[in-house]
Amino acid sequence: QFTLVDWKPKRPDMLADAFGLGKIMQDGMVFRQNFSIRSYEIGADRTASIETLMNHLQETALNHVRSAGLMGAGFGSTPEMTKRNLIWVVTKMQVLVEQYPSWEDVVQVDTWVAPSGKNGMRRDWHVRDYRTGQTVLRATSVWVMINKQTRRLSKIPDEVRAEIGSYFMDHDPIIDDDGRKLSKLGDDNADYVRTGLNPRWGDLDVNQHVNNVKYIGWILESAPISILESHELAGITMEYRRECGKDSVLQSLAAISSDGCDHGSLETGFDCQHLLRLESGAEILRARTEWRPKRAHVP
Amino acid sequence: QFTLVDWKPKRPDMLADAFGLGKIMQDGMVFRQNFSIRSYEIGADRTASIETLMNHLQETALNHVRSAGLMGAGFGSTPEMTKRNLIWVVTKMQVLVEQYPSWEDVVQVDTWVAPSGKNGMRRDWHVRDYRTGQTVLRATSVWVMINKQTRRLSKIPDEVRAEIGSYFMDHDPIIDDDGRKLSKLGDDNADYVRTGLNPRWGDLDVNQHVNNVKYIGWILESAPISILESHELAGITMEYRRECGKDSVLQSLAAISSDGCDHGSLETGFDCQHLLRLESGAEILRARTEWRPKRAHVP
Repeated sequence: QFTLVDWKPKRPDMLADAFGLGKIMQDGMVFRQNFSIRSYEIGADRTASIETLMNHLQETALNHVRSAGLMGAGFGSTPEMTKRNLIWVVTKMQVLVEQYPSWEDVVQVDTWVAPSGKNGMRRDWHVRDYRTGQTVLRATSVWVMINKQTRRLSKIPDEVRAEIGSYFMDHDPIIDDDGRKLSKLGDDNADYVRTGLNPRWGDLDVNQHVNNVKYIGWILESAPISILESHELAGITMEYRRECGKDSVLQSLAAISSDGCDHGSLETGFDCQHLLRLESGAEILRARTEWRPKRAHVP
Repeated sequence: QFTLVDWKPKRPDMLADAFGLGKIMQDGMVFRQNFSIRSYEIGADRTASIETLMNHLQETALNHVRSAGLMGAGFGSTPEMTKRNLIWVVTKMQVLVEQYPSWEDVVQVDTWVAPSGKNGMRRDWHVRDYRTGQTVLRATSVWVMINKQTRRLSKIPDEVRAEIGSYFMDHDPIIDDDGRKLSKLGDDNADYVRTGLNPRWGDLDVNQHVNNVKYIGWILESAPISILESHELAGITMEYRRECGKDSVLQSLAAISSDGCDHGSLETGFDCQHLLRLESGAEILRARTEWRPKRAHVP
């Protein structure tokens, strides 16, 4: 167990972690990094936004690859992947938030990878409050390789498997797949439609694509602010269908789901279905969000 | 001088800085905090966005107040200010960026305060690359106190001056005021107008107002992406006129300035004038930006 008292800069690579770059634990299988929640990462509730928490997941995934000495030229690609023009893309992601941290809280993010089917990789995260040890969130994701030029799916080449295979843990996913399919939303069954969403310059990543995390902002934008004021996001499941570039104009559709609770039960929790699509109708992302009433209102 | 080699966790308050919360230097006059640039803080250029750099300024200002033991109930308000319902608001800010840091770079932010006129406070920042010592940016800002309820300007009460006066440094501003007035933009003299800008839920701060840093995103949105692709922001001067809440709908106007350079000289640098206003015409913010060609293009 890594505790404050035990923390001594013994080796140069631990010294480097004075800058919070994280380190590999448990014989190299788990990567751990702490983040203090900064004033600009909290919102109107004084708690970290879901985007902030998702950013920590992205950052630890990349730092895990880098710490393992496996960072090629690309963002998270290994040297053998870089040679073959292969990149990872996320196809599915599920996040369950138990509590939102506040300004000055420190969260401890653990992440590890595992095989997913024959040609996929699963990456899980467990985020805890550093001081109390309580779970902040659990998340799981599935990744596949595509060719950067053709954008076609690729098997994991043997040379890449040799690089990353020893990091694969034999562990069940940290979240059980509930098996519920994400239903298709359209103009006929959406309760809210927000049109004309444009990527801002700052929304683009180094591949000139909209960063995955930005999608969540657009999903939330389709919901009325009154819901965001009274409820908090308890969970989100996303299926990525298609990339989105800088000239895309998006529409965000949402429907409050009647599965298990009727529309009048906003005092308890409820589910929403979401769709991000291009104006042409092409699907970018399907999602389901789960909401619960806020526990503590800050006046 | 604070160097990596000297860094030893001797006292609990230094241990705490393993989480990057910063500390007070130079007999309490200068607050210093390091930030490692994270993957989600860089944009399409692989360098930190101006918003990221501005966020670091906000964070160090707040942590300075907190480290001095002067954090009242509000965000940056001292106990005596909190008693009197007083808050700080920024009226002017000027930032000069010499170079944009990249992912994994560590920036070292120094900040201090000084008097500004009879009833204002100046806050300066000097940001350096931690490893090379080279200047990343310099910034200066002017703050005044207002009453949170009436929103009227207040003198600095003696009790508040007693709290903060000992932190005031006797130093010239880190940037010389060039004395150029920000001109008024309107429909007649704007080159670009972007309308219908809505605060997103995530843009609101704990006071339910749009965070100052978000304004910069809106300023940049009025410029065509082609400029953002070929040029980088070298400097920005902002005058804050009015607050902006969650239901505001904004317009962002921009004009390429012909002062000193004609419209055809995009291969060198140029200035822009900006105005953020409500649809009613009320001014939120005037700004001037300075642009220079990007030094190194990442293919």
